[in-house]
Amino acid sequence: MELQRVAIVGVGLLGGSIGLALKSRGLGAAVMGFGHRPSTLQRALEMGAIDQACQSLPKAVADADLVILCTPVGLFESLLGQMASDLKPGAVVTDVGSTKRSVVRQAHKLLPRKVQFVGSHPMAGSEKRGIDYARADLFAGATCLLTPVAKTHAPSLAAVERFWTALGMRTCRLSPAEHDRKLAAISHLPHAVAAALVHLQQDAALELAGKGFLDSTRIAGGDAALWRDIFLDNRDQLGAAVARMRAELAALARLLRTQDAAALTQWLEKAAQRREALMQKKLRDMSVE
Amino acid sequence: MELQRVAIVGVGLLGGSIGLALKSRGLGAAVMGFGHRPSTLQRALEMGAIDQACQSLPKAVADADLVILCTPVGLFESLLGQMASDLKPGAVVTDVGSTKRSVVRQAHKLLPRKVQFVGSHPMAGSEKRGIDYARADLFAGATCLLTPVAKTHAPSLAAVERFWTALGMRTCRLSPAEHDRKLAAISHLPHAVAAALVHLQQDAALELAGKGFLDSTRIAGGDAALWRDIFLDNRDQLGAAVARMRAELAALARLLRTQDAAALTQWLEKAAQRREALMQKKLRDMSVE
Repeated sequence: MELQRVAIVGVGLLGGSIGLALKSRGLGAAVMGFGHRPSTLQRALEMGAIDQACQSLPKAVADADLVILCTPVGLFESLLGQMASDLKPGAVVTDVGSTKRSVVRQAHKLLPRKVQFVGSHPMAGSEKRGIDYARADLFAGATCLLTPVAKTHAPSLAAVERFWTALGMRTCRLSPAEHDRKLAAISHLPHAVAAALVHLQQDAALELAGKGFLDSTRIAGGDAALWRDIFLDNRDQLGAAVARMRAELAALARLLRTQDAAALTQWLEKAAQRREALMQKKLRDMSVE
Repeated sequence: MELQRVAIVGVGLLGGSIGLALKSRGLGAAVMGFGHRPSTLQRALEMGAIDQACQSLPKAVADADLVILCTPVGLFESLLGQMASDLKPGAVVTDVGSTKRSVVRQAHKLLPRKVQFVGSHPMAGSEKRGIDYARADLFAGATCLLTPVAKTHAPSLAAVERFWTALGMRTCRLSPAEHDRKLAAISHLPHAVAAALVHLQQDAALELAGKGFLDSTRIAGGDAALWRDIFLDNRDQLGAAVARMRAELAALARLLRTQDAAALTQWLEKAAQRREALMQKKLRDMSVE
């Protein structure tokens, strides 16, 4: 894949940041931006995130070597169907979705044989949404998960890996099912938990919120439509993770009822130690970058 | 209360920070530090958090106008019993505990009539523990909750309020029961939830942890013994909050099972909006300081 033309489908926080990163790193590809709202496209042009704007999806993707789906995951199926017949032979399609089983399945069903699909999940973002928060360095140092399957075209997989690496990311491969199971626990569940923690507060208690509460609920501030799509798309795995969380809380409730001080200390200590080990690992990873 | 001598019982993060704040604000009182470990007392002396160190509790509190309990709450009952007969007439005792019903009850039972007790909960801290993390500005701009009861001596309550205000805090009064109920929801539950979120992760998922997970579990890094005491002391209210959390998660599980997109969007949106309103309120509070 020679990367002369990139089409970004959905010019929001992630799509806009991809365009800015391409430009700031001098990667030279012409960037086409697709979106429904003229004001968003206009802003993306002004910021230099895209070179051209287009409100017609078939036109936006027609000449692209690489098409990147950057909308909420709930729109992927419809977008893949609309663009299928207009992609050029040899084009590679990827995405930035936070769930991977459905998009991989839909892409293999809807895209023609002459086009390759590789699932991607660049793990970078913000609780802020929209082009105004796009940044050239959003992806720098973060990890991009790629989810090849048996029929994934190896050269296209390598090309997509090179693309994210060029944007400053580490890449890592895992299956779509493994991705969705792990992300349900480490990302989707914490989001659900943060929202639940906010919901159950009474106004009078909320007034006493300190830094701990604000930190632990920061991710509840994310875009509702985006997370609704993720939750629904990954509902089986998220449901399983929610059940594990409820079981863990039930175990704690038992320790409180029985006043088992030793077991409670161990429960708290193990969590603190495990998180500390994770922090140390993250710091080591950063220092070898 | 003329504040000439203050005794800090337990010279850790909070006790040490009280000493440093008193000194840096030029409040002039002589500060006596009590603790079991000579190395901790030595460090507190070196840092200038205390003027004198003492490993005997009766001696440490004998001349104090104000005694502040700064150990984990599980030790309060024993400390109050040990110091009761050595406090001077007119002395005021307060504490920095995160639970208030038990300490208020114990103090009124164990302390002699000539001594006054006022429950305090300065809402400042860190997931770090120990004198090495003590800071003169730990309390600046934060809120201190005071929990008077019917028999609380009004001039002593006012004096303890002046004390915290002099350290840069806002003060707020509420009953011990109200305190423990609200803190269970807004502080103790988030800590329990963060620990549970760490526990249920498999190692392979933990490797994919991003900033969101690290932020939402930061408070799980706190001192286990400290939090064990808080959890056990407030076990009825924390148990009730855990039950509300489990019910909230069960409601989410139902939305996932029924794929109720509209209700799920509303659930996520309401949490995001409520947290945003809280953030805006916090920012306004800070700007009028």
